[in-house]
Amino acid sequence: MVKEKPKQQSVSPLTGKQYPIPEIIDDKDGINAFIGQHPGKKVVVVQGLGFVGSVMSLVVANALTEEYAVIGIDLPTPFSYWKIQSINEGIFPVIADDPKIGQFYRQAREKKNLYATCDANAYTQADLDVKKQSNGNGHLEDYTVDLSPFKKAITAIGMNCKPDVLVLVETTVPPGTSQKVVRPILEECLEKRGLPTSQLKVGHSYERVMPGPKYVDSIQNFYRVYSGTDEAAADATEKFLRTVISTNEYPLTRLGNTQATEMAKVLENSYRAMNIAFMVEWSRFAEEAGVNIYEVVNAIRMRPTHKNLMLPGLGVGGYCLTKDPLLASWARMNLFGSNEPLEQSEIGVHINDQMPIFAFQFLQSQYNGSLKDKKVLLLGVSYLNDVGDTRFTPVLGIYEQLVGAGCNVALHDPHVMYWEEKELRVNNDLDELLRQPYDLIIVTTGHKDYRNNPSLINKLLDQHASFIYDTIGILTDDEIKTLKGKHIVKVIGRGDL
Amino acid sequence: MVKEKPKQQSVSPLTGKQYPIPEIIDDKDGINAFIGQHPGKKVVVVQGLGFVGSVMSLVVANALTEEYAVIGIDLPTPFSYWKIQSINEGIFPVIADDPKIGQFYRQAREKKNLYATCDANAYTQADLDVKKQSNGNGHLEDYTVDLSPFKKAITAIGMNCKPDVLVLVETTVPPGTSQKVVRPILEECLEKRGLPTSQLKVGHSYERVMPGPKYVDSIQNFYRVYSGTDEAAADATEKFLRTVISTNEYPLTRLGNTQATEMAKVLENSYRAMNIAFMVEWSRFAEEAGVNIYEVVNAIRMRPTHKNLMLPGLGVGGYCLTKDPLLASWARMNLFGSNEPLEQSEIGVHINDQMPIFAFQFLQSQYNGSLKDKKVLLLGVSYLNDVGDTRFTPVLGIYEQLVGAGCNVALHDPHVMYWEEKELRVNNDLDELLRQPYDLIIVTTGHKDYRNNPSLINKLLDQHASFIYDTIGILTDDEIKTLKGKHIVKVIGRGDL
Repeated sequence: MVKEKPKQQSVSPLTGKQYPIPEIIDDKDGINAFIGQHPGKKVVVVQGLGFVGSVMSLVVANALTEEYAVIGIDLPTPFSYWKIQSINEGIFPVIADDPKIGQFYRQAREKKNLYATCDANAYTQADLDVKKQSNGNGHLEDYTVDLSPFKKAITAIGMNCKPDVLVLVETTVPPGTSQKVVRPILEECLEKRGLPTSQLKVGHSYERVMPGPKYVDSIQNFYRVYSGTDEAAADATEKFLRTVISTNEYPLTRLGNTQATEMAKVLENSYRAMNIAFMVEWSRFAEEAGVNIYEVVNAIRMRPTHKNLMLPGLGVGGYCLTKDPLLASWARMNLFGSNEPLEQSEIGVHINDQMPIFAFQFLQSQYNGSLKDKKVLLLGVSYLNDVGDTRFTPVLGIYEQLVGAGCNVALHDPHVMYWEEKELRVNNDLDELLRQPYDLIIVTTGHKDYRNNPSLINKLLDQHASFIYDTIGILTDDEIKTLKGKHIVKVIGRGDL
Repeated sequence: MVKEKPKQQSVSPLTGKQYPIPEIIDDKDGINAFIGQHPGKKVVVVQGLGFVGSVMSLVVANALTEEYAVIGIDLPTPFSYWKIQSINEGIFPVIADDPKIGQFYRQAREKKNLYATCDANAYTQADLDVKKQSNGNGHLEDYTVDLSPFKKAITAIGMNCKPDVLVLVETTVPPGTSQKVVRPILEECLEKRGLPTSQLKVGHSYERVMPGPKYVDSIQNFYRVYSGTDEAAADATEKFLRTVISTNEYPLTRLGNTQATEMAKVLENSYRAMNIAFMVEWSRFAEEAGVNIYEVVNAIRMRPTHKNLMLPGLGVGGYCLTKDPLLASWARMNLFGSNEPLEQSEIGVHINDQMPIFAFQFLQSQYNGSLKDKKVLLLGVSYLNDVGDTRFTPVLGIYEQLVGAGCNVALHDPHVMYWEEKELRVNNDLDELLRQPYDLIIVTTGHKDYRNNPSLINKLLDQHASFIYDTIGILTDDEIKTLKGKHIVKVIGRGDL
């Protein structure tokens, strides 16, 4: 379907199949054939087929009150090209615990209303665009935000879309972006093409997608906040959202302008990041003061006003908490001309980023500064419990430092078979891994496979005397007591051990 | 009852009555007579008769499963001496909306089991001491914590108490204080007196008292966390708490050591202070970005994980949120030798402290830098809605700056008749105040008297054109629209106006 002039390869980690990346992207025939199968249907183009966009495209293909023809679009890069091919060949590129993913994908295959491509021509068909590039559109370089990839993507839409398109930005952007960046670019493109700009509609609505067993529900059955750069855009956004989201149970909330919804998204993530940073600091204090921070937090959480108090851990991961506070602070200074950053939010990011370094330095101090040639097992690569999501996982920091210090590091994760960012296979077989001896075993993710697991404790007891470092606090008091008979056991936030 | 050699006066703001402060404090006869009326009863000495201690002494005098003889003790200062006399003369020194205060005080008067004094001899009678000096024992001087008044109070106990006393510290102290400060001082005192130290018991348990209509319930019917410097002390603390708190409905939680409970108290207050600081920053960003932060927060609060998100305001007040994060950070560095502060918590305090300054500067900017001779009305002096509590109110900051800038400032508060810290009478009659014309009317407390009050809006409309600054966000959209017909209206956190 695409004229191929092989050069680079994109490899599916799911099947190992290699896809040569074409040099010239021309999928007009494929797009037209797909559209031709769906006369009269509105075409929805979902830009970005990553963790969020791919599932969003499934939700739109299975819309509740409307039949859409859905085109997913992503870049022809080694990282993304296989996903496009995989979607069209019958293998959904995201592995998840949610059975609805498989069900929604099968239904879309049956209805033949989902097609993936890397040809920007898809936009000529778009009645509506869901901008869902979760990665690649907000690079953070030590404190500047580079919007150029994002602007490029918007330009591609502007150069190809119908003049009455609804461009619905769902990705996380610095507050002000829809109004001050997206709309001006689209207007400029339409003008260049000699088209009117009066029918253009730019909306913003953010999802709160949560990879895991309720992946699809976190899009379809959850509260949504939306807005438009003008009333027509807000109305069009509302109309679209009503067709894909269960708005009877989860009513929509319209905010006054696009800055407000953009701010809401980064504010809620900054709130969470900051609250985690708060506990990171206090868990260190607890260690110094001989306190078990877990019993302290549990005692405080009895107050309804303090239920949201977090627990300590290895820091934060994922796409939102690691960058949204900075996106917001950047926008405050760069899009709205303030000379004050969002200090509390910025410091939160900084404290969280330090956490894996702190954990590594603690380990180093336990070995008199030298970890060279130590055999290390990391239990968990994902940043989130019971989910195989490695994006910006804090495990990366501790892993790289251990490797840098000359350790021999083995990785286990029940939900990750391939660590994309590191291009590493991850072993899913804990029993096999534990047949090897380790100097150091570090619990790095709070998967339930590691919790209340007597077989794991027994296997740890079979290990020769080693150092067990629980960075998540999943070991119970009894388990710690048992393990202490043979090993040195340390837990982040527990100064009482 | 006390040998009087008048010098200083202590004046009751409730009755205007003057009490000469005696130079020599000797109330042995009074104490002995009181004890003599209660043979066989355990004597509980509550140290500190401020906002917390006075009400705690009522709760102990009305204990659920035991009859105690309660002695309240405070210092013979102009600030406190009248409270001692007032308690003994039949007028409870704390005005509150909670009808249980009056009821508990009447019951104690009938049972004659509550006596107040300023004579440290009371400690010779103490089987148990509830340390409840909410003020005077944790002075903050730009970042150092002065424990000397607190140490002095503990020394007074140690030089007078029985050797088997339970000293229960309920005041907020830097984590580590019970173990590293209180116990060593008491032991030293007992040794000086030639008494054994083996029966001494030091416990820690913090209240979560909340002045307002549920003042008494916030002590008697609420979760308590406690600990002891050893097991005997923890057991004795538990036994005592069971007699005064409804532990069937609100089970007690014992933590592993006194550092843990001390940390819990300052952690929960730091958490709140930091979350307020977070919103302070974001509300400024909202103003810059043309966003209504209230609609943003309400949209986010639909998520159960984000229900605790705060709303913006004029900053924080009260005894806890303004100082506890610093107490904790100080303890980390000074009692446990860390070279890192609790940065996130410290910055929270700093941001909150800046808020009244920010509000003042904003007003100044609206008047081209000069507020000289402006007539200003502040609506609210208390730091808390619907309560007359002025301790560390952020209204102080804006009040002092306005006065410093040459404004003529009038004060209203329905719950405050006397602003102790400023030694100022506060007018409770809003109608009378509003008969005067003002250039500037500032809502500084969120009392319900100011909310949804059409009569207030009408009176504001009768004012000549002026500037209305709502620092709390209590004005509704309709009210703002109405007022804008005549006045300039600004609301903190609302960039959409």
